[in-house]
Amino acid sequence: MDNQLLNEIKEIFQNGSEEDKDALSSMIKGIRKKQRGECATYLSGITQVSSQFLDDGSFEVIIPIQPLIENPLKMTHGGITATLLDTAMGSMLNLKIAEDKACVTTELKVNYIQPGRGKYLRCIATILHLGKQLCFSEAKVYNDKDKLIASGSGTFFVIPRT
Amino acid sequence: MDNQLLNEIKEIFQNGSEEDKDALSSMIKGIRKKQRGECATYLSGITQVSSQFLDDGSFEVIIPIQPLIENPLKMTHGGITATLLDTAMGSMLNLKIAEDKACVTTELKVNYIQPGRGKYLRCIATILHLGKQLCFSEAKVYNDKDKLIASGSGTFFVIPRT
Amino acid sequence: MDNQLLNEIKEIFQNGSEEDKDALSSMIKGIRKKQRGECATYLSGITQVSSQFLDDGSFEVIIPIQPLIENPLKMTHGGITATLLDTAMGSMLNLKIAEDKACVTTELKVNYIQPGRGKYLRCIATILHLGKQLCFSEAKVYNDKDKLIASGSGTFFVIPRT
Amino acid sequence: MDNQLLNEIKEIFQNGSEEDKDALSSMIKGIRKKQRGECATYLSGITQVSSQFLDDGSFEVIIPIQPLIENPLKMTHGGITATLLDTAMGSMLNLKIAEDKACVTTELKVNYIQPGRGKYLRCIATILHLGKQLCFSEAKVYNDKDKLIASGSGTFFVIPRT
Repeated sequence: MDNQLLNEIKEIFQNGSEEDKDALSSMIKGIRKKQRGECATYLSGITQVSSQFLDDGSFEVIIPIQPLIENPLKMTHGGITATLLDTAMGSMLNLKIAEDKACVTTELKVNYIQPGRGKYLRCIATILHLGKQLCFSEAKVYNDKDKLIASGSGTFFVIPRT
Repeated sequence: MDNQLLNEIKEIFQNGSEEDKDALSSMIKGIRKKQRGECATYLSGITQVSSQFLDDGSFEVIIPIQPLIENPLKMTHGGITATLLDTAMGSMLNLKIAEDKACVTTELKVNYIQPGRGKYLRCIATILHLGKQLCFSEAKVYNDKDKLIASGSGTFFVIPRT
Repeated sequence: MDNQLLNEIKEIFQNGSEEDKDALSSMIKGIRKKQRGECATYLSGITQVSSQFLDDGSFEVIIPIQPLIENPLKMTHGGITATLLDTAMGSMLNLKIAEDKACVTTELKVNYIQPGRGKYLRCIATILHLGKQLCFSEAKVYNDKDKLIASGSGTFFVIPRT
Repeated sequence: MDNQLLNEIKEIFQNGSEEDKDALSSMIKGIRKKQRGECATYLSGITQVSSQFLDDGSFEVIIPIQPLIENPLKMTHGGITATLLDTAMGSMLNLKIAEDKACVTTELKVNYIQPGRGKYLRCIATILHLGKQLCFSEAKVYNDKDKLIASGSGTFFVIPRT
């Protein structure tokens, strides 16, 4: 094991803040999840997102709020909220179209309505239109008190999965 | 130091792929940068973004492409591209407005034009309008061959910095 | 009455197509409605929009499809669909905020899902957030068979009504 | 000629405001232009838009500001600004792609930066990407003093022209 890196890790544990240690812990668990094949990307591993279809056919993605995803104003970074919306809409569509196809995001718009604070953010995505070449989806992000945090919509282009 | 966590780290180094090790290394360096106050957020630390104003007044943010920011199709995750655009526009505006004010993103739109691949992505943001309460900005993302990857625009609301 | 204009009108009636005559008729009725104070703008007069709040609190705007609002491909012009969405969201918000305030559109996004054809388009707008300075709304456009034609969202800025 | 309609026209001329008469005049000229095949739609005829490619390859569309296109606050209706942006981007792309193809708007976003007032609005559209199936464009709207009024971007889908 790389000594330089081990020293850096020790430095975080000895002199880092609680936030620093939490961040390190999250990242290591995320990489391990990716290593074991429990998630598709490092990003979803370290942000600890979980997802499921709900009974009404909508798709839910939950992301815990942790220092790792905060902006300098100590609220969830707008880019993470955008990532959550894009992930929810894109993942749902990819589960709905034919297995030999993939959906890629052509366009994404996000409205930021309230600061993303609390224990977690919950995104609910729905399908507006499933076309042969273009799919349309929209999604809402709520906090742990079910208050609307953000709203998004996107256009997705269907390509052959190679 | 936490034994459980140390075992996880060893597991990554002994059985992880090169990508896993690179991801771990990036994350640890990122936390250390945040710990030393060299970056404002963990997100900017682990994604290793760097930024500067260019001579023509535009604002440049560069992000290296690494496995950590890739989607399952092995190109830069659309959420990261959105984060890059939001960061470039928002950081620039916050450097341009009065020191006792902050700009928060009200709305962000991204057009994804080409897959984000190569060594790095480079985002160039410009100001459309600096208002007392609303600011407008647009930005473009290029790859390491100066090909247009994405285009974005955003509306920002000016609030008192508390 | 202006002779030149009268000749133009005669020319439309003698040599124009049925569509030309319908367009003329719509426009004249629209100007008369504006003249009598039955609508706020020429645009709403000639496009014959009608609107009302529904029992669930959403706001409905209906626009008949006529040659006047078609694009060269003989479907409703995308700009008219955008106008319909903007009008529905903006009118609703202006009826909801304090009487000494007005809402102006800061940003509008439209997704065009199906060609706008048939007898009429029906737009349903809902409020996402009514803030002191920023309001957020979204709206859907359906055709006369209740098929989704377009989806939109907007950000509105509250200003004093002078 | 229809007597009822003739009476309505007389009513506008005898008791209408100058604005009413101007609106009528614009509409009649617009229908005549469409009748003579000088414009593709009634909407472009009555709004008197004119367009051309500029030397730098961008596409310019100019629309005179007249009461016909104003909102209740006596500035250019946001829907008309959206129509101008959509028309400029769409017309340009349709002139650039193969003759047996057409471009339809999939998504349009507009930022409204300043009220549209003055003699005319001038829209400058540029191409971001000309793809086989998806095209991307952006455009800016200026007033007669070259001040930025609005900024827009759109995604266009290429279909066979039937």
